[in-house]
Amino acid sequence: MSTILKGIAASNGIAIAKAYRLVEPDLSFEKRSVQNVSDELKRFDTAVSESKSELQAIREHAMKELGADKAAIFDAHLLVLEDPELLTPVQDKIRDDQVNAEYALKEVADMFVTMFEQMDNEYMRERAADIRDVTKRILAHLLKVDIPNPSMISEEVIVIAEDLTPSDTAQLNRQYVKGFATNVGGRTSHSAIMARSLEIPAVVGTKTAIQDIQNGDLVIVDGNNGDVHVNPTPEVVDEYKQKQEQFERQKAEWAKLVNEKSVSKDGHTVELVANIGTPNDLDGVIRNGGEGVGLYRTEFLYMGRDELPSEEVQFEAYKAVLEGLKGKPVVVRTLDIGGDKKLPYLPLPEEMNPFLGFRAIRLCLDRQDIFRTQLRALLRASAYGNLKIMFPMISNLDEFRKAKAILLEEKEKLIQEGVQVADHIEVGIMVEIPSTAVMADLFAKEVDFFSVGTNDLIQYTMAADRMNEHISYLYQPYNPAILRLVKRVIDAAHKEGKWAGMCGEMAGDEIAIPILLGLGLDEFSMSASSILRARSQIRNLNKADMEKLAEDVLNLTTNEEVKEHVKKVLSKA
Amino acid sequence: MSTILKGIAASNGIAIAKAYRLVEPDLSFEKRSVQNVSDELKRFDTAVSESKSELQAIREHAMKELGADKAAIFDAHLLVLEDPELLTPVQDKIRDDQVNAEYALKEVADMFVTMFEQMDNEYMRERAADIRDVTKRILAHLLKVDIPNPSMISEEVIVIAEDLTPSDTAQLNRQYVKGFATNVGGRTSHSAIMARSLEIPAVVGTKTAIQDIQNGDLVIVDGNNGDVHVNPTPEVVDEYKQKQEQFERQKAEWAKLVNEKSVSKDGHTVELVANIGTPNDLDGVIRNGGEGVGLYRTEFLYMGRDELPSEEVQFEAYKAVLEGLKGKPVVVRTLDIGGDKKLPYLPLPEEMNPFLGFRAIRLCLDRQDIFRTQLRALLRASAYGNLKIMFPMISNLDEFRKAKAILLEEKEKLIQEGVQVADHIEVGIMVEIPSTAVMADLFAKEVDFFSVGTNDLIQYTMAADRMNEHISYLYQPYNPAILRLVKRVIDAAHKEGKWAGMCGEMAGDEIAIPILLGLGLDEFSMSASSILRARSQIRNLNKADMEKLAEDVLNLTTNEEVKEHVKKVLSKA
Repeated sequence: MSTILKGIAASNGIAIAKAYRLVEPDLSFEKRSVQNVSDELKRFDTAVSESKSELQAIREHAMKELGADKAAIFDAHLLVLEDPELLTPVQDKIRDDQVNAEYALKEVADMFVTMFEQMDNEYMRERAADIRDVTKRILAHLLKVDIPNPSMISEEVIVIAEDLTPSDTAQLNRQYVKGFATNVGGRTSHSAIMARSLEIPAVVGTKTAIQDIQNGDLVIVDGNNGDVHVNPTPEVVDEYKQKQEQFERQKAEWAKLVNEKSVSKDGHTVELVANIGTPNDLDGVIRNGGEGVGLYRTEFLYMGRDELPSEEVQFEAYKAVLEGLKGKPVVVRTLDIGGDKKLPYLPLPEEMNPFLGFRAIRLCLDRQDIFRTQLRALLRASAYGNLKIMFPMISNLDEFRKAKAILLEEKEKLIQEGVQVADHIEVGIMVEIPSTAVMADLFAKEVDFFSVGTNDLIQYTMAADRMNEHISYLYQPYNPAILRLVKRVIDAAHKEGKWAGMCGEMAGDEIAIPILLGLGLDEFSMSASSILRARSQIRNLNKADMEKLAEDVLNLTTNEEVKEHVKKVLSKA
Repeated sequence: MSTILKGIAASNGIAIAKAYRLVEPDLSFEKRSVQNVSDELKRFDTAVSESKSELQAIREHAMKELGADKAAIFDAHLLVLEDPELLTPVQDKIRDDQVNAEYALKEVADMFVTMFEQMDNEYMRERAADIRDVTKRILAHLLKVDIPNPSMISEEVIVIAEDLTPSDTAQLNRQYVKGFATNVGGRTSHSAIMARSLEIPAVVGTKTAIQDIQNGDLVIVDGNNGDVHVNPTPEVVDEYKQKQEQFERQKAEWAKLVNEKSVSKDGHTVELVANIGTPNDLDGVIRNGGEGVGLYRTEFLYMGRDELPSEEVQFEAYKAVLEGLKGKPVVVRTLDIGGDKKLPYLPLPEEMNPFLGFRAIRLCLDRQDIFRTQLRALLRASAYGNLKIMFPMISNLDEFRKAKAILLEEKEKLIQEGVQVADHIEVGIMVEIPSTAVMADLFAKEVDFFSVGTNDLIQYTMAADRMNEHISYLYQPYNPAILRLVKRVIDAAHKEGKWAGMCGEMAGDEIAIPILLGLGLDEFSMSASSILRARSQIRNLNKADMEKLAEDVLNLTTNEEVKEHVKKVLSKA
């Protein structure tokens, strides 16, 4: 039966393909006594050898499609599967305690996992993860339950999941994944940001995709308006194929703007730059005509490793980005960890409200060892391009002054050591906390630039967690309260001859762009994949008209009123 | 040895008495096999009969000192202690499994607790709590560990605790508790608010009181400056006795102002009103010369019960407060539940950031059954005094319009039913979310009044959980960002001929009062115990001078600068 699910459009474009469900299987079981021990031992052996053939097939496939690097994990799994130190105690337990194989396996595996996890040795802790994975696979065979093997995907699919974590996508073969649809998340959730960075269509927050869609169902993901069609009629498929072509034609049109300026009809020029997470993202920035990087999120450098990244590792990454952009501006945000972003090797206090907690600059001012290492790496890299440094989560001038003083100390030290450092490095702040927007006039006297982080600014200004689905209606980017704070920041910057940018989701939003242009925003930083569309939009707007529009919407009373007003004005233009 | 702990002054005054530690005892034990079962059975019987005599003594004492009501709980405990359904299985287990009494008792008790807790019957669930309490007591006797019996306190003490919950204080005999010192908490934590409402000196957030103070240590709690002296020298005791007398004389001075107006030297009158939680607090309001109630927190009506309070129960409470205040204004805040305040019978979603979550008006607009019941009770009570209704956590005009429309619907229905309702009831909002402060000009056209809730406004504006000790330095009431938002709210109200009040901690703060007077705040709502001090302060200030002061501090850059500036100006005055 054909159905339509409504979600949140998270990444533009249209994808049509078979569904591939990426779900945690139900591996629960009961402890049972067994009468016939030899039958149970046979059941266990069968499950082990089935797991082995499966793993061999996956390994071979991964080797061919993803390379030796990604295939290596399956070698490790095969070793575990053949290890008598794991298998023998399970067989003994089945025999001695006359229990079912599932129970015996789980007991033995849990014991090993606990033991390895407590060891102060990364290699052993990794073995714990391997044992856990292999145990799951054997259990699945014992229970006759399917487990997803994303690396085995060998045809075009649309991935259906509760949510997608960074580690999920690492396993996906990007060549075959044409789109995502998830149950949870919003425009600013990690899965949405990832989809835009991979430039594949995605719809998030459908609430029920995982319940309503079966493996192999034909699915259309409409990342432009947030619809997910399940088993559509041939007519609908045809219609969407046309839309898809139309979207591709549109993209081809936009692509012509790759070397054009971001200038309004009446000649006002702005800067369209990209948000990036790693040096790998540079390719997309250049392909999409980005005029620089407005937000380099350095958190990724700290993730997926066992210890803090050294100054050298950081220096290389920053240098790669600066060199890759050949003198174009690169705004690097210093570490924004804490809140919902944790590092396994950096234990932080458990907090009741992590979004209102010990994170970002608050953590860096406390853990100056971490902060100084990053600043040194940045300062050293500054010799290789056009670096600007930005501090996150600044809530008052004390914090900015302290952070800047530390930066200057490290700069002085490097100069003393004879290390080359750029003469002038602009030092700015994220404006993502209401107090800082309110105090922008006084901040503007001391900072070199502002970049409004709307994702957080909206959630704090409205006092509504943007990840909390019960109150997602309060994530209101067009609420005049937000627009007024943004205006305050831009005006304050200009009054002191500084520039103001924006690096939240809002900067690439089609309803917001006309208002922001009207308010005088200088720099718009967004997903690289949005840059050409935004440039096309701005080239079709008159700044003078948008100034009038901005003035009008600041005195409307609600988010909806603003949205409707902008739509009306745009449709007339 | 004499030591001084530094904490946060949470409730004024000085207390000198012996320490009484209110701590959870360590009742951990190991499972042991026992050789001599009959000895172990004897150990168990002894512990049971010791517990019984102890409980009888407590019961008798409670009956005499606290009344039959509070003593009833110990009757229930005695019944459990005599119940063979609990005792026999423990004895059987000791005998059959040859285990120690602690283990046998815990196993049997846990089984009963789990069973009773799962029953859909409040009486049975209460029995689970009784069994848990009694088990703890027997365990303590088995382990020879002291457990605190706060209801047995029969001499003047200072209570030392990690933190104090509402249920802890319910058991305390207020006559003997002269002060509190706790490890955690800030000026706005529940224990601090409670101490002020009980009008006893308190210091919170000492971090180590519970570690550094033993039962019986002589302790001085200086609630004026946040010091806790442990085993002070006789000289220090004398010094504090003098300070105590001085403070009492000061209070006697203030007490003369109970019927005076709250008017500045140059003739500007403001309203000094109280924050209350229950009709019981009225006595303190009247004794301290409160000119009304600026915040009646209705949450307490919903706590400590098994189901939502009926319309009738609520009506009686609201009526009692309105009648008690004989026509003086009473601002009732509608239900502000959720966040850190939970109700056992109202399951709410688990949230990652409850302070940014589904609470207060957000919940009420969703659960209109709860909201409408409260509004009907309020409307019915409005005939008995001067009622004003206030909605909490309003973040945008949509919410206010919806809430007001529901109120008007219920009013219309009551009038149709022939129920008497006051002709005019002012309807206002808490301003505790930054977006609402920023939009105050447009809100002022639709609301009848504002009341700034600084506790929340500060935490959202600074994006810092006020309960989180790692970032407590960011709870900055004098940060010019906060003061500017407050000014915005006051100016917006006055422009539309409305009034603006404040019901956060800040309204009673000696540094804040001069600024707020200068900004033109109309109504200051605070702990009743602060009213006379505030009145005395205001009567010694010139409004015109404070206007100048307010103007100056709005352009300072940090919390500290403002604080220092106000102190300097006050010391000159």
